[in-house]
Amino acid sequence: MMTIYGDTRSGNCLKVKMICDLLDLGYRWQDVDVLSGETRSAEFLAINPSGKIPVIQLIDGRVVSESNAILYFLGVHSRLWPEDPFEQAQVMQWLNFEQYSHEPNVAVARFIKLYQGLPANRAAEHLRKLQGGYQALAVMEQHLARRRFLVSEHLTIADISLYAYTSCAHEGGFELGRFPAVARWLMQVASELLGNKQSESIHD
Amino acid sequence: MMTIYGDTRSGNCLKVKMICDLLDLGYRWQDVDVLSGETRSAEFLAINPSGKIPVIQLIDGRVVSESNAILYFLGVHSRLWPEDPFEQAQVMQWLNFEQYSHEPNVAVARFIKLYQGLPANRAAEHLRKLQGGYQALAVMEQHLARRRFLVSEHLTIADISLYAYTSCAHEGGFELGRFPAVARWLMQVASELLGNKQSESIHD
Repeated sequence: MMTIYGDTRSGNCLKVKMICDLLDLGYRWQDVDVLSGETRSAEFLAINPSGKIPVIQLIDGRVVSESNAILYFLGVHSRLWPEDPFEQAQVMQWLNFEQYSHEPNVAVARFIKLYQGLPANRAAEHLRKLQGGYQALAVMEQHLARRRFLVSEHLTIADISLYAYTSCAHEGGFELGRFPAVARWLMQVASELLGNKQSESIHD
Repeated sequence: MMTIYGDTRSGNCLKVKMICDLLDLGYRWQDVDVLSGETRSAEFLAINPSGKIPVIQLIDGRVVSESNAILYFLGVHSRLWPEDPFEQAQVMQWLNFEQYSHEPNVAVARFIKLYQGLPANRAAEHLRKLQGGYQALAVMEQHLARRRFLVSEHLTIADISLYAYTSCAHEGGFELGRFPAVARWLMQVASELLGNKQSESIHD
């Protein structure tokens, strides 16, 4: 059984939990407390030299890091990865958008507000992150106005990737009410993720 | 014939030129001057709503944006995309690393130094970008000390992606002499990219 090293407060780690639960993949969850510096310990660096979570370790010892690469590895043979190369490229496009334009703004704004309590010396940075995050959300809004999911008519790993931090963007100070198509898409993705497990919380 | 919209001063755009030249894919290159704001024009936003280059437009009008997604789309059926799912995931891992940990530091440090002339009001930011960039280069150094290429024994799109800004990192103020394995890898990738085209400049 594979091991997921992660911290449930991190959206990047929740992506891995979400796809495993959705596809009924068995795993052992190993908590790594990123705020107390456990990702910089010699023990953890031996598993992932870049010192980042999430990382998964397969039963043969091999590891895959970077949340979106893990989504790919776990989802490539499932319904979450399209067959058409153009649609595959669109999934890749949204995964890159997430890591470059969305996560560094939306997740960092949330970190500063939720976990650091928005200290005065990071207020200007928080404002910049809000601006950058709103730009990313506006790109999603324009795209989702005409679509049910980010790529094709079905849930893909792109939706899971962008759901992770969009669904908790309000904790960073974002008003999602400005983005009705994004809000509708969030409910759609949540419904797919919950599936027949409506009695469980996906954030448990 | 597809059209590449790009700016040759941008490493992200050069990635697309490199893979096309390497795989002998025909294209029309359309210069878009990012510094003068051409990516924010209504004409360009109609092609790519996120206002970013590079973007490719296929002969049927469809577009693919995000440099690493374009590398995937153009390379997925070539020798540059491994067959093994674990190696594919490793390529994805390095593509994500490039967009999250490498490019935002190495490319931005270069932009501030080379194109803005390192103005005093961005000196502190440049220093932070150098620090972040050196961390990313150290991760590459440790990995490449034991390998010829980033993934497997062959060139993949991961090498092309990370080559783009690593090969011009000195323009941002980085001393690559500190990273002998990275320097050796750069020469190896350059040799593959040049191939039989040694009389041409890949930066022309």
